[in-house]
Amino acid sequence: MEHPENDKQYKGLTVNEGVQQMPAVNPYATFRRNKRTLSVQEYVDGIRRGDISILGQAVTLVESNLPSDQLVAQRVIEQCLPFAGHSIRVGITGVPGAGKSTFIEALGTELCQAGKHLAVLAIDPSSEKSKGSILGDKTRMNELATQANAFIRPSPSAGSLGGVARKTRETIVLCEAAGFDTILIETVGVGQSETAAHSMVDYFLLLQVTGTGDELQGIKRGIMEMADGIAINKCDGNNIDRARAARVSFKNALMLFPPAESGWTPEVICCSAIDHSGVQDVWNNIEQYIAFTQKNGYFDYHRTEQSKYWMYETINAALLNGFYQNEQMEELIKQTEQQVLNNEISSFIAAHNLLDAYNKKK
Amino acid sequence: MEHPENDKQYKGLTVNEGVQQMPAVNPYATFRRNKRTLSVQEYVDGIRRGDISILGQAVTLVESNLPSDQLVAQRVIEQCLPFAGHSIRVGITGVPGAGKSTFIEALGTELCQAGKHLAVLAIDPSSEKSKGSILGDKTRMNELATQANAFIRPSPSAGSLGGVARKTRETIVLCEAAGFDTILIETVGVGQSETAAHSMVDYFLLLQVTGTGDELQGIKRGIMEMADGIAINKCDGNNIDRARAARVSFKNALMLFPPAESGWTPEVICCSAIDHSGVQDVWNNIEQYIAFTQKNGYFDYHRTEQSKYWMYETINAALLNGFYQNEQMEELIKQTEQQVLNNEISSFIAAHNLLDAYNKKK
Repeated sequence: MEHPENDKQYKGLTVNEGVQQMPAVNPYATFRRNKRTLSVQEYVDGIRRGDISILGQAVTLVESNLPSDQLVAQRVIEQCLPFAGHSIRVGITGVPGAGKSTFIEALGTELCQAGKHLAVLAIDPSSEKSKGSILGDKTRMNELATQANAFIRPSPSAGSLGGVARKTRETIVLCEAAGFDTILIETVGVGQSETAAHSMVDYFLLLQVTGTGDELQGIKRGIMEMADGIAINKCDGNNIDRARAARVSFKNALMLFPPAESGWTPEVICCSAIDHSGVQDVWNNIEQYIAFTQKNGYFDYHRTEQSKYWMYETINAALLNGFYQNEQMEELIKQTEQQVLNNEISSFIAAHNLLDAYNKKK
Repeated sequence: MEHPENDKQYKGLTVNEGVQQMPAVNPYATFRRNKRTLSVQEYVDGIRRGDISILGQAVTLVESNLPSDQLVAQRVIEQCLPFAGHSIRVGITGVPGAGKSTFIEALGTELCQAGKHLAVLAIDPSSEKSKGSILGDKTRMNELATQANAFIRPSPSAGSLGGVARKTRETIVLCEAAGFDTILIETVGVGQSETAAHSMVDYFLLLQVTGTGDELQGIKRGIMEMADGIAINKCDGNNIDRARAARVSFKNALMLFPPAESGWTPEVICCSAIDHSGVQDVWNNIEQYIAFTQKNGYFDYHRTEQSKYWMYETINAALLNGFYQNEQMEELIKQTEQQVLNNEISSFIAAHNLLDAYNKKK
């Protein structure tokens, strides 16, 4: 499949600043793989001039597990790095049913109409199995998908969380180099994905719904303390009173938490994605947070820490995978774990036995 | 230095069930290192008959970093394992100033007087530097230290948190084999020690004090959601009203948290370690928790998970140490981290460069 407009654009060879000339390409086109292999330079040039189709292909490369694709992808990322970093990165989480898709559709449409260039990404290690997969059904974001300034990309398909999260983080670099100034990252709110998202965003938003304990069951413990802000969604119809009461409860609870490292006090905001009420308030809070942390230095400090985190996280994952993905170890690990469970050997002797065996086999 | 009473006891060679014949040895004696080297069997026999002096020496072996000591220590632990596990293990945390020592003194004295055999351990990786070291100044537990049934042991001296925590966990095994039926583990409440303690106890108690945000500053975010119970200490004098109000606030906040995996609803209890009021209520809550989780199966499930956790944690630490403690890597890691911070290379390329260098050097 050819993209004549790409070729035409490519001939121009002008590396623009990305944002201004963002072409109104149908975002659905980003999911088709261009059969013609582009060079690293062609990818980088395409991304830099905001060519959404080439950006989509580059993301596909990033998501590919083929070593040859990864080689190209890493070089593209490396060349995009100097142009990355100039966006606001926001993580959004909440249990299934909290209305994440509707909220992102409402917020995203407002942002696009205000002239922002918005990329919507996701981290959902379960996405291939399409069970509750987020952003998988793009028809849920009909309105946003038609915005010229929006780039919507589902989660990389299933794999280890670390792998999926890494790909999303690399996609951020490409999107930023393509001129997107606002990145929303959606997670499912039920697992480790939140920690991963938290480690790559500037602001972490928890979307809650009103009601008793039942609605909260899906949220992993600890996520509330990660949040830079809480939005009580579905504050509409005959739910308004309950939503407002929930807001007070959450606000009181947050006051018992120790102050965040950023110095920021999280706000609790009622909104209705359906009525579009309060959605702008949530965004205003995000912008206030950015201004606040840019002023006190936390914004840059936090990003630096995140870069270091990802370097060490990648190293650690590789070191551990060498052990756990060693086929010769598999059976021995299983047996030794059973010895520990039977209280035959201590956890520590078990570990040392396994490490001895590993070092001999290497 | 000789311990004639040990030699006399040892000659008895009777392996009793430990608890009944716990000798009233001065606990201070446990910190002197017996120069005579005992055999593995002598250590095990001494521990099994509840000889506090030999237990103390065995703990010193566990804490030693000498490979020859570790060899003996691991064999002692292995032989003690079949007799371990029969205790209630409670973690206690709180910021400096929350009155942890006074609380443990009050609770511990009550438990000893009720016939419990109590071991008090600590996890404090900073302990060698004696900055805010817990249990380091044993004079803070004057009353408890004179109880015949109490064994008080400061934190293993400074080292990596993983190392310090591992030693504490191994010490639990020895204490249980010696017949101690109640283990309290104190942590400082300001760092990762809580996660480590949480992964080796049955019940995790957060000690809070009343007041505004200031008093809460020291507690790491996320610890509140780890707690199986919260005790508001210093509910005495003209502080009673504030303590009771704080109790209501914490109770409301806990209601917003998702239910714990154990099915248990954490309680918030006011107490005063100085007045000895409410301390028994805290203990009753712990016993209710134990009964509740033993009935629903969580107690055993949780301990099994903890054993697995420590096996994998030990493996992971060893795999990572091979990389990070490799002297040839040190300078390269520093340089590469700087490249990431300068935005010259991505976190992922940095990681791969370092791993390549490591694999070549190995």
